[in-house]
Amino acid sequence: MLITPGKLLSKIDSPADLRKLDSSQLPQVCNELRQFIIDNVSVYGGHFGASLGVVELSVALHYVFNTPDDQLVWDVGHQAYGHKILTGRRNDFHSNRTYGGISGFPKRKESIYDAFGVGHSSTSISAALGMAVASALENNYERQHIAVIGDGAMTAGMAFEGMNHAGATDSNLLIILNDNCMAIDPNVGALKEYLTDITTSQTYNKLRDEVWNMLGKMSNFGKSAQEIVSKVEAVMKTAILRQSNLFESLGLRYFGPIDGNDISHLTDVLKDLKSIPGPKLLHCLTIKGKGYGPAEKDQTKWHAPGIFDKITGEIKKKVYDSPQAPKYQDVFGNTIVELAKQNPKIVGVTPAMPSGSSLNIMMNEIPDRAFDVGIAEQHAVTFSAGMATRGEVVFCNIYSTFMQRAYDQVIHDVCIQELPVIFCLDRAGLVGADGPTHHGVYDIAYMRCIPNMIVASPMNEQELRNMMYTAQLDSFQSGKYALTIRYPRGTGVMPQWNYPFEEVQIGKGRKVKDGEDIAILSFGPLGNYAEQACVQLEKQGISAALYDMRFAKPLDESLLHEIFASFDRIITLEDGCLQGGFGSAVIEFMADKEYNTKVKRLGIADTIIEHGEPHELYKECGIDVTGIMKSVVEFLNAKSTLNLFSL
Amino acid sequence: MLITPGKLLSKIDSPADLRKLDSSQLPQVCNELRQFIIDNVSVYGGHFGASLGVVELSVALHYVFNTPDDQLVWDVGHQAYGHKILTGRRNDFHSNRTYGGISGFPKRKESIYDAFGVGHSSTSISAALGMAVASALENNYERQHIAVIGDGAMTAGMAFEGMNHAGATDSNLLIILNDNCMAIDPNVGALKEYLTDITTSQTYNKLRDEVWNMLGKMSNFGKSAQEIVSKVEAVMKTAILRQSNLFESLGLRYFGPIDGNDISHLTDVLKDLKSIPGPKLLHCLTIKGKGYGPAEKDQTKWHAPGIFDKITGEIKKKVYDSPQAPKYQDVFGNTIVELAKQNPKIVGVTPAMPSGSSLNIMMNEIPDRAFDVGIAEQHAVTFSAGMATRGEVVFCNIYSTFMQRAYDQVIHDVCIQELPVIFCLDRAGLVGADGPTHHGVYDIAYMRCIPNMIVASPMNEQELRNMMYTAQLDSFQSGKYALTIRYPRGTGVMPQWNYPFEEVQIGKGRKVKDGEDIAILSFGPLGNYAEQACVQLEKQGISAALYDMRFAKPLDESLLHEIFASFDRIITLEDGCLQGGFGSAVIEFMADKEYNTKVKRLGIADTIIEHGEPHELYKECGIDVTGIMKSVVEFLNAKSTLNLFSL
Repeated sequence: MLITPGKLLSKIDSPADLRKLDSSQLPQVCNELRQFIIDNVSVYGGHFGASLGVVELSVALHYVFNTPDDQLVWDVGHQAYGHKILTGRRNDFHSNRTYGGISGFPKRKESIYDAFGVGHSSTSISAALGMAVASALENNYERQHIAVIGDGAMTAGMAFEGMNHAGATDSNLLIILNDNCMAIDPNVGALKEYLTDITTSQTYNKLRDEVWNMLGKMSNFGKSAQEIVSKVEAVMKTAILRQSNLFESLGLRYFGPIDGNDISHLTDVLKDLKSIPGPKLLHCLTIKGKGYGPAEKDQTKWHAPGIFDKITGEIKKKVYDSPQAPKYQDVFGNTIVELAKQNPKIVGVTPAMPSGSSLNIMMNEIPDRAFDVGIAEQHAVTFSAGMATRGEVVFCNIYSTFMQRAYDQVIHDVCIQELPVIFCLDRAGLVGADGPTHHGVYDIAYMRCIPNMIVASPMNEQELRNMMYTAQLDSFQSGKYALTIRYPRGTGVMPQWNYPFEEVQIGKGRKVKDGEDIAILSFGPLGNYAEQACVQLEKQGISAALYDMRFAKPLDESLLHEIFASFDRIITLEDGCLQGGFGSAVIEFMADKEYNTKVKRLGIADTIIEHGEPHELYKECGIDVTGIMKSVVEFLNAKSTLNLFSL
Repeated sequence: MLITPGKLLSKIDSPADLRKLDSSQLPQVCNELRQFIIDNVSVYGGHFGASLGVVELSVALHYVFNTPDDQLVWDVGHQAYGHKILTGRRNDFHSNRTYGGISGFPKRKESIYDAFGVGHSSTSISAALGMAVASALENNYERQHIAVIGDGAMTAGMAFEGMNHAGATDSNLLIILNDNCMAIDPNVGALKEYLTDITTSQTYNKLRDEVWNMLGKMSNFGKSAQEIVSKVEAVMKTAILRQSNLFESLGLRYFGPIDGNDISHLTDVLKDLKSIPGPKLLHCLTIKGKGYGPAEKDQTKWHAPGIFDKITGEIKKKVYDSPQAPKYQDVFGNTIVELAKQNPKIVGVTPAMPSGSSLNIMMNEIPDRAFDVGIAEQHAVTFSAGMATRGEVVFCNIYSTFMQRAYDQVIHDVCIQELPVIFCLDRAGLVGADGPTHHGVYDIAYMRCIPNMIVASPMNEQELRNMMYTAQLDSFQSGKYALTIRYPRGTGVMPQWNYPFEEVQIGKGRKVKDGEDIAILSFGPLGNYAEQACVQLEKQGISAALYDMRFAKPLDESLLHEIFASFDRIITLEDGCLQGGFGSAVIEFMADKEYNTKVKRLGIADTIIEHGEPHELYKECGIDVTGIMKSVVEFLNAKSTLNLFSL
């Protein structure tokens, strides 16, 4: 079902069409754009609240600026649906985030209007500044460079680094601070309080206005007073313009706050700003979910609600016949609470993903021991290290892809110092609709090369629980190792998962299934695909053994010796990159021990994997059930009667 | 030669001894401590200016606070010599930074007074906040937590992330901003300008003082004026206390600026601050190199001057009989200028290491195309990516160890977007005296797993030049690959290096030497050790072939086929970690192609390598000339008459 756009929107195939309209027509464009987003997301799913909040900004920016020559960089990118619809992707918008469809984020390959690809937050200022500096090097001082960044994204250090550089240049950069008090969860930290203070008590404006008013009145007191007044005014001006505002302190001219959902005012202000040279910041207040009641009311829930009934606001949940396995996230969230109730040393840390990681369960139940530090992965890790030096048992939960932001801190502050911090790497493997920027596929390789780091991945919910249990025991915490436990997004495989805790032996795998022809060594949740593949292969007369290795580091060397002594063909399987990953660890063992076994490594090839459903992507990578079977058959060179395509 | 400490200093074996002294004796302690640092560093070398600048701070902090129970975290750590000398390491101080001696940085294993290990900058706020939060969880509200951070380190986003969190807590945290306007090179950016503004024009204090004075005078004007005055005062108070200062904006109480080299004032202020709860920042102005004239005058040169004559201030350079090879850094610096003069699209970027990387050569010659962005590696990479989208040819020079800070940006902003940014990873391999925090040994593994990334390492200066030349050619820049060129600290092997440019074929290695018994495949500068080893082995009747592979990714597969077809024993050699590194890439090839060759991988084992001279460390790792020979002999199981210990 294709959604029909409104009358004006249906004629906007590019921003040039938008710019032909009279400014009086813009409110209608906004209405139609908002409705089109609601209509589409309610049917096809996707991110929701962020794009609704910036409908007016999207229209105003493309109306006022000369895109694509003017460079528009959307931070994070899930706010860019309106931008996509206005820039030639209206008719493809139904394919948003689906396999083969358009991306949910701006993407350079997709459109000339997407000046910079995004997904992770807080990159826009640096990127737009790079463009602005490049324009200056070309002696082009007309081109505008705009970064649209949320207040949540502004807490990441990278945004500060960008401002610190920008503020010392005369580059033609406009930063639009899209302030809606939200990341996915409510924004936290001192900066957020500061912005709220500017906005609500409006101290800044109040100061400026009241003092100037008063100075006016005082000038009636005669000459000596006038002298004083002019002196105060000079001091005040310097102070207010240069110092009374955090962004002015950083060398950016500050404008605002203004109502970012007022299209008319917004276009006026943006037009004015075009003629003001140098780096500047416009503070826009917007409402996440604007224009759709339920989304305005519960902004976290409606960040990416899935499919819903747009009339009733009812979010449609899938109905299942049988009890479903829980999400790994909820296993994490419930397990840390269960453990923390027994072990008062346990603390939990998340950088701005309380609901995504389910640490919010602990934040509700044991609030003083669970910390949301905002979008600040670097800080999250070193803050965890600091707590660990004082004997706290720290579970630091960061999405695999975001852990890339804190790589140095893991090496420098945790592993070199031999601190037993527990890293729960959520959303490891191919994450699905979020695509290349969010796949958690490098972590095995980038963690495995760090000394004092253990790398584990559970095959199911029970193993996740038991790994978490093991990590907080004194026997582990008194050691010198940090631990990475990586697990995927979404549901696991065990509807009944809440078994009593059992200690996991560090560096020990387990045999899942006997076999004679070949051994499959799996790391993590793909073991479940392998298990299904083994059953199917058995029916075809191929006897494959399966081992759930659990640890990529340290490897279970005694088990490996047993396997390498028994099999002349081995397959390794992982939901991570093939370069330097788990399979490489196994062949390092093989080479070191001088085995001559043939080993085939299955995993993510050395290429960027696009978005789609995880099962579609695993199929593409040849590591779904069929792919594994196919590899086994090919590797054995078996003249199997197996009809792979019937599966 | 052991340096004799002064009379008071000689009796300070721990801060407890210091605290027994009368405060009137502290200036003498400072003098003696300063002299002891000068005496030692002039003879033994090491970092210099930073520690001289914080002599008074070091004494005051240990005098006022109850270390080690109070937690003192020194940012970066090369400012901590005074701290080390006062905390029981005076007699070991001559061994500073030498193999087996004490570390040049605070290190938890070395002393209970080193609350947190450091080396990289900007970690102190996060770490100390972690400790403060842990103390609060233990209901200990007495313990003090102090982070001493330089203004240079303050520009890194991580410091901002820490402040954003700290300012929203009531944690017992004192941040001491050690403001000396310097990183290793002069500090840059908007924050620096802001701090200078506070300090020189003292707008903040002037505002407070003048306005309050004036309000006093105005109250003479009668009642209505008084009303106005009280109204202004209220507004001003809110504004000044809450907003007129960047740090106050972030929820930190701001104190200062004060003279951080005035021991008496410093101890008074610190005592006062002990009783003020919550997160706070003390802005101290210090002079880097304080008390040693030449070091005050040329602060970059005297950051780590090497051995010098303390009387004349003459830095002692080694004298050589024959012409020496240049530093790789100077080859980089001169080559980028040479290329940029021919190719106007070339720009250079460094995060705060102009002199260390020798990009300062370009900053002097072509200032508008060379950018020092401050300590801000994340920004440096994404800023580079932004420029690359506009067609600039970007050489982004970052030390290997600091690139860990920008890992996500390399993946997310460069490689996923297929931007041909050129990363020059300086100080790859074991860096020597800086030790574990600075070794650049993970880069091969962590870069090799990223799609669209090429990983190269030159064996000599000429190869570095030619790789840089190749990377800026249209043929490379029109492609989709980023390029990492990693090279070591210090001198190369070619006194004559300035040959005409030649294009390097991407992914092609070269045979250095024929041989029959075994093949050595080297990646990077250790190839030179291997070459020497081959010569020695030849004399002992062992014929080893040597290949300079140049690229860890993509591998030269045709050359590898040739080698694997010809040899049944192969050694790989690299100055990086064995897990997932170059050797792993070679055995991945071997496994994929089903060769049965025996491969022994030489490199850095899975352990933290301490500090020392690079040749000492490479020896320890078994990858110096002797180590390589030994491995060859053992691997061949040769009954060689070789006397390894005579080498």
